[in-house]
Amino acid sequence: MIVHILSTGDEVVLGDIADTNAARLCKAMKELGLSVERITAVGDEVEQISSVLMEISNKADICLVTGGLGPTSDDVTAPAFSRAAGVELQTDRQVLTNHNGTAPGFYTTLNRCLFFFMPGVPAEMKMMLEKEVVPVLKERYGLDGAILVERLTVFGLGESRAGSLLNGFHEQFPGLRLGFRVDFPVIEVKIILPHVSGTMETARSLMDQAKQWAMDRLENKVVSGKGLSLAQEVGRLLSAQGKTLAIAESCTGGLISSMVTDVAGSSDYFLFSAVTYSNEAKIKILNVREKTLLDHGAVHERTALEMAEGVRLKAGADFGISTTGIAGPGGGSPEKPVGMVCIGLAGDSVSLAKTYRFTLDDRAMNKTIFAHTALDLLRRHLTGLLKAS
Amino acid sequence: MIVHILSTGDEVVLGDIADTNAARLCKAMKELGLSVERITAVGDEVEQISSVLMEISNKADICLVTGGLGPTSDDVTAPAFSRAAGVELQTDRQVLTNHNGTAPGFYTTLNRCLFFFMPGVPAEMKMMLEKEVVPVLKERYGLDGAILVERLTVFGLGESRAGSLLNGFHEQFPGLRLGFRVDFPVIEVKIILPHVSGTMETARSLMDQAKQWAMDRLENKVVSGKGLSLAQEVGRLLSAQGKTLAIAESCTGGLISSMVTDVAGSSDYFLFSAVTYSNEAKIKILNVREKTLLDHGAVHERTALEMAEGVRLKAGADFGISTTGIAGPGGGSPEKPVGMVCIGLAGDSVSLAKTYRFTLDDRAMNKTIFAHTALDLLRRHLTGLLKAS
Repeated sequence: MIVHILSTGDEVVLGDIADTNAARLCKAMKELGLSVERITAVGDEVEQISSVLMEISNKADICLVTGGLGPTSDDVTAPAFSRAAGVELQTDRQVLTNHNGTAPGFYTTLNRCLFFFMPGVPAEMKMMLEKEVVPVLKERYGLDGAILVERLTVFGLGESRAGSLLNGFHEQFPGLRLGFRVDFPVIEVKIILPHVSGTMETARSLMDQAKQWAMDRLENKVVSGKGLSLAQEVGRLLSAQGKTLAIAESCTGGLISSMVTDVAGSSDYFLFSAVTYSNEAKIKILNVREKTLLDHGAVHERTALEMAEGVRLKAGADFGISTTGIAGPGGGSPEKPVGMVCIGLAGDSVSLAKTYRFTLDDRAMNKTIFAHTALDLLRRHLTGLLKAS
Repeated sequence: MIVHILSTGDEVVLGDIADTNAARLCKAMKELGLSVERITAVGDEVEQISSVLMEISNKADICLVTGGLGPTSDDVTAPAFSRAAGVELQTDRQVLTNHNGTAPGFYTTLNRCLFFFMPGVPAEMKMMLEKEVVPVLKERYGLDGAILVERLTVFGLGESRAGSLLNGFHEQFPGLRLGFRVDFPVIEVKIILPHVSGTMETARSLMDQAKQWAMDRLENKVVSGKGLSLAQEVGRLLSAQGKTLAIAESCTGGLISSMVTDVAGSSDYFLFSAVTYSNEAKIKILNVREKTLLDHGAVHERTALEMAEGVRLKAGADFGISTTGIAGPGGGSPEKPVGMVCIGLAGDSVSLAKTYRFTLDDRAMNKTIFAHTALDLLRRHLTGLLKAS
């Protein structure tokens, strides 16, 4: 079944909005077991819309059209369809009720394709899709299939390295596809089963095998086998183990705390964090020893360790993590260059600090990778992947 | 000039992401005076991509393609183009440098169309577009580079309200255009002079008038007349006045600190911040009085004030700002609903707290708007727009 999506509206081709309607429609189709072959967007011009409707009518079996159904002068989708169909009035149109607005939609056939016309206002479209369009599709095509997707969150590998570690996947699992999405510095690896052919049980078991195969090859770089973010996974581990966390941030400037508190329910395990840019704050708030700072400087494993232990004691938390490093653009030196960070981890049974050097020449990217590295150190400790030292 | 956009990637047709690349490309074309006729999106399948490239090559003059250039197995755009062009190696390909990543882009001609191939990772695509593609287009097609753009950073107004406050702009300044870009919760209002016709001096003076006109109408909602972010503008003001800042965050969870420290050089004025989720931390670190918490609860102006004063004293800073509120999804009550935040501001000559209520039903959006509101309170104080109370 070939499915196309057509979005109409000047706001899309002028770049005023990203086309979120198309993303929602794709998701709905995926849930029906249909995959969308193509998305097209054009502005509010009768000729353009009419010509693309004609093209689609010969290529696709189903086309979901949004936009241009309202009462104003830029609402030209219905006239465009009439022009494409070469008729003034479509007598075989079935009405789609608009539960959230005034302009109704409709569906009808042209050439090989069944067209659904919906409003462009996202809330109206969403409701019409769920209440009207999906039931028609289910009934017409007896759809109860599904695309299966597994998501692995990977940290600590570049996209190309992840790709080469997974070489051989397609030979091993010919019916499945791999997808890679980079959300720096994390990669989401997707394992996709586009069409369930046998039973759902067989399909699920195939997906489990493929997931295990991929996780084995990506080793301990898989943060979550369920698509959780690093902060979500750390939160899940802390909650499961009944542990609490405090954070001391220098170069990451509050970013770790913000990532941790983006997770709903984080108040269950996150107690306190201190962003200590100045040496004074490190001494006064975290009880870092003045001698440590004098002997080694702020960017040093010894300082990181005292920061982690200091914040943990201050907050009465089970774990303390810390960062001190050089995000740039200024502040670097030959011994302590931009991109260098010391990360501390302190707990009842752990007390360590590590130094990492990244070669990114961008303050925001350095903050981001430093923050992920710190959370990942804690994650590996919580999962037993890290040997305490 | 007929311009098409082609986005490739399973993540688009599976509905995992909205196609923000296409929106950005449309905007860039608009700024060059070109309008996009059609946007197409397909998944990572060689045949699909190849056939749509062939279609476009006969329809469009310029096509901007994103996605599928990386090193992994789902990166199939280049092979798809070779298939469409019927050649193994494109000898007339020109390389487009990737300033933010490893996979280079390229541009080349097929049939009537000049194709530009860029990565799908938004940051890489954006940089390649600006530094590589736009200059090529300007040179090839004589698109006059002398566009003048002024950027106003606006906080505290919705897009439609900003738009209606600027009603009459086009009558007043017929040669200029207005652009609006929402980067929640901030709006960037752009004043664009698409083609400089007379002298540059006359053009600049016209732009200055238009900017002043717009700033007058948007009143004190203009954070920066130079396109600075709110954190950059606050940093600029603090530096200019030789003042320092400490921050106490509850519901914003470190986001304000992270925004402040995203600005290079922020260590000049930012001393310390405490993320105090628990009451214990508020008492122990910030010296909030236990009685205040017992009498009023954590989310109260009195608490916010003591937090701001406490962190200021602790850090020895000139100013302290604080947030305590309910970001959701849990924790709300009829008296203190999700979206309510108390913000404190303390300094030598200022000591105040204010309550704000937002109706966003999203944790991350609440954190974001709370953080901006706190920084904006400080900004208005620093610019004298806020009367001390």
